[in-house]
Amino acid sequence: MTDLFLTTFDWVPEMPRGYVRDIRVRWALEEAGLSYRVNSVPFRARGPEHFSHQPFGQVPWLTHGDTSIFESGAILLYLGERSDTLMPADPRSRSEVIEWLFAALNSVEMASLPWSIFMFSGDTEDTPGRKSLDKFLESRLQHLESVLAGRKWLVGTFSVADILMADVLRLVDRFDGLTGYPACRDYVARATARPAFVKAHADQMAHFAAAD
Amino acid sequence: MTDLFLTTFDWVPEMPRGYVRDIRVRWALEEAGLSYRVNSVPFRARGPEHFSHQPFGQVPWLTHGDTSIFESGAILLYLGERSDTLMPADPRSRSEVIEWLFAALNSVEMASLPWSIFMFSGDTEDTPGRKSLDKFLESRLQHLESVLAGRKWLVGTFSVADILMADVLRLVDRFDGLTGYPACRDYVARATARPAFVKAHADQMAHFAAAD
Repeated sequence: MTDLFLTTFDWVPEMPRGYVRDIRVRWALEEAGLSYRVNSVPFRARGPEHFSHQPFGQVPWLTHGDTSIFESGAILLYLGERSDTLMPADPRSRSEVIEWLFAALNSVEMASLPWSIFMFSGDTEDTPGRKSLDKFLESRLQHLESVLAGRKWLVGTFSVADILMADVLRLVDRFDGLTGYPACRDYVARATARPAFVKAHADQMAHFAAAD
Repeated sequence: MTDLFLTTFDWVPEMPRGYVRDIRVRWALEEAGLSYRVNSVPFRARGPEHFSHQPFGQVPWLTHGDTSIFESGAILLYLGERSDTLMPADPRSRSEVIEWLFAALNSVEMASLPWSIFMFSGDTEDTPGRKSLDKFLESRLQHLESVLAGRKWLVGTFSVADILMADVLRLVDRFDGLTGYPACRDYVARATARPAFVKAHADQMAHFAAAD
């Protein structure tokens, strides 16, 4: 594959650095050994061109020839369909990778990201809604803990499902939310020790630091 | 396709009826005119067999021959790949349907479902976290409103992306969260007027009512 362009913000505040979702795409591209270039769009002034690629004004998006794709999940699926390193070719494993890819985003991150929003806000009030939200995340992590206690990666070998799940979990870990879940914590440590993650993370940090 | 089995709970409380996620799969199967049967698992006593199909103890899952798939997004993608009614075959439209399918789950539902959890809890406390969560949903709906103001469906003709987006939005609508978003509200009305949704909804209601 040639002509892969990843677009991210030109700059973001300190807080989200290392966690901006372009890291998922960088990580996948590094794992697959695909060459790519990184473009920037203004963080502060998001124009019509930006919204034409990403209708919510977020990042990242990937362009490949005249195809432009937004949503980290859709991008990783697209890359997975083009690289056996990212997604196994046999139909059964492929189907399992796809369900876990959705599980990372729609079963785990749907609980963990809102929880992180409360943590970011420094909100410690124990209201009924907050209790329900905490319980929602707890339930997801408990079940995931059972799964990860018996597996190195979600489906046989490392895949795009692991990139998404590990990236989702490391934001929980940032706020010490994995304390009671040793298998989840070990899984995050295992995933983020991979050279492709280390490079992706360093590249994102350098990208935003260059704009300061 | 033969031998499609959709599994859902045998019973759920009043509150979630009509909104249990098996409706997404029923709706897709009805749109595609595929025949299927519905199996039940206990809502109260979730056993190892249940967790072997759905590791978070949720529903639905779909079995097709010896393939078993969980996550409504993964199931709809699987069905979409097998039905031109659910997902257009040409690569560009297919790619757009897939990005919108992820957007429904990971950009919109990730904001709307936690918000609904607070609404379900009757939680009205205006804490900093709650304000951030409200703002998160508001931002997503504002951008989606611009998109839907100019389109009947997300990508040309009706697709699995619309099933997911409309189902996500109708839970927001249930709590009057679409009041300021007329294009979103019209879109939900348009989608849920489709005979396939009407049948799927009636079937889910009848399924749970039969267990009372």
